[in-house]
Amino acid sequence: MKKHKISIVGFDADDTLWVNEPFFRESEFQFADLFSGYMGRDLVIRELFQIEMKNLELYGYGIKSFMLSMIETAYKITGDAITKETIAKIIEIGREQLQKPVQLLDGVEEVLHKLSSHGYKLIVATKGDLLDQERKLRKSGLEKYFHHIEIMSDKKESDYQKLLSKLDIKASEFIMIGNSLKSDVIPVLNIGGAGIHVPFHTTWQHEEISSDGVNEYIEVESITGVIPMLIC
Amino acid sequence: MKKHKISIVGFDADDTLWVNEPFFRESEFQFADLFSGYMGRDLVIRELFQIEMKNLELYGYGIKSFMLSMIETAYKITGDAITKETIAKIIEIGREQLQKPVQLLDGVEEVLHKLSSHGYKLIVATKGDLLDQERKLRKSGLEKYFHHIEIMSDKKESDYQKLLSKLDIKASEFIMIGNSLKSDVIPVLNIGGAGIHVPFHTTWQHEEISSDGVNEYIEVESITGVIPMLIC
Repeated sequence: MKKHKISIVGFDADDTLWVNEPFFRESEFQFADLFSGYMGRDLVIRELFQIEMKNLELYGYGIKSFMLSMIETAYKITGDAITKETIAKIIEIGREQLQKPVQLLDGVEEVLHKLSSHGYKLIVATKGDLLDQERKLRKSGLEKYFHHIEIMSDKKESDYQKLLSKLDIKASEFIMIGNSLKSDVIPVLNIGGAGIHVPFHTTWQHEEISSDGVNEYIEVESITGVIPMLIC
Repeated sequence: MKKHKISIVGFDADDTLWVNEPFFRESEFQFADLFSGYMGRDLVIRELFQIEMKNLELYGYGIKSFMLSMIETAYKITGDAITKETIAKIIEIGREQLQKPVQLLDGVEEVLHKLSSHGYKLIVATKGDLLDQERKLRKSGLEKYFHHIEIMSDKKESDYQKLLSKLDIKASEFIMIGNSLKSDVIPVLNIGGAGIHVPFHTTWQHEEISSDGVNEYIEVESITGVIPMLIC
């Protein structure tokens, strides 16, 4: 990585700045336990994942889509035995998840503070539900560090290209930091930017990808590992 | 209006560029008809509206929020008698609405073409669900006219202020065109911009507002009425 060229640092939000995926896992467990009389947890979660994948193109990412897919899975599993309680419980699982406090990951504030003090322009580039992501950013107290916040319906190469062109940023000046190789690192490498992968202990199946054949990227164990990469 | 100062024209999307609210009315009627054994249409729709308003802060705008509120209304109305068929039908109503073709309103393309040919920078500023609004813009074929597209979680004064500051636009250079006095015209007038109201025959209750005491704004009968306002 040619440090001297990079001037804009993009951060993924969920599971890069703050905890997210474990809340989905927790909701899935609560959801699965509603159907313990029908099938085991793993099977319920597998059904749910299939329905989420079927709905992804139409609904997009985020908790409301997840709620709608849980409801669809529920009547697929229980058939005519679906009850008011089950539906109400699913709505409650989703509403609770929407209202979780934001838990910053260790070292995040230090990294943002140091990079912005060193003259980097910081942006957030995150997928998910517009209102929910805005709310999390507000709750996080991190907004002040960011020059720009982009909530995206997807993170493919063309989405990053649009973003960089909108912000008048050359790919060679841009580095993206995130926990998803598939969404945060690979598409940015493919358009000529740089990427740092900061793995998180829990990854949604949909974001899993093999790193075989992927261009060179950097992996650090925790987000503070990016500091020596970007600050001499 | 001081025509010579205005250089950026903002357009609302739903019911300004294309038909939207009538699709919600249609979905509401289909929804209400599922409960004809319980209560009349008006009462069902009133229940639904109350639940939508309760959920608005948490869910935000858009069809997925509407689907979740329909499901909640359904079990509120039917109680333990909720059936798989009812839930499946509600999901279907929402999915169909998400897949409606985009119907441009009369004169929209002419207005966009003329204003952009005359050197105005055009932007879209719309509320709603991120993915759904992006999809409608793509389907509309209108993207090429717009310098910038902003999908917003709300359209209050502070939201417009953020948008103008992000795009480095002075309020005095900006005019907003839309069908909602409450969301498109009044907040923009209040921050020093200009506004043109283009009423649409159907307005969601939530967007209704009295125009008493509102600063001066222009109202035109159809969108082509903005052409003589902005082009000498």
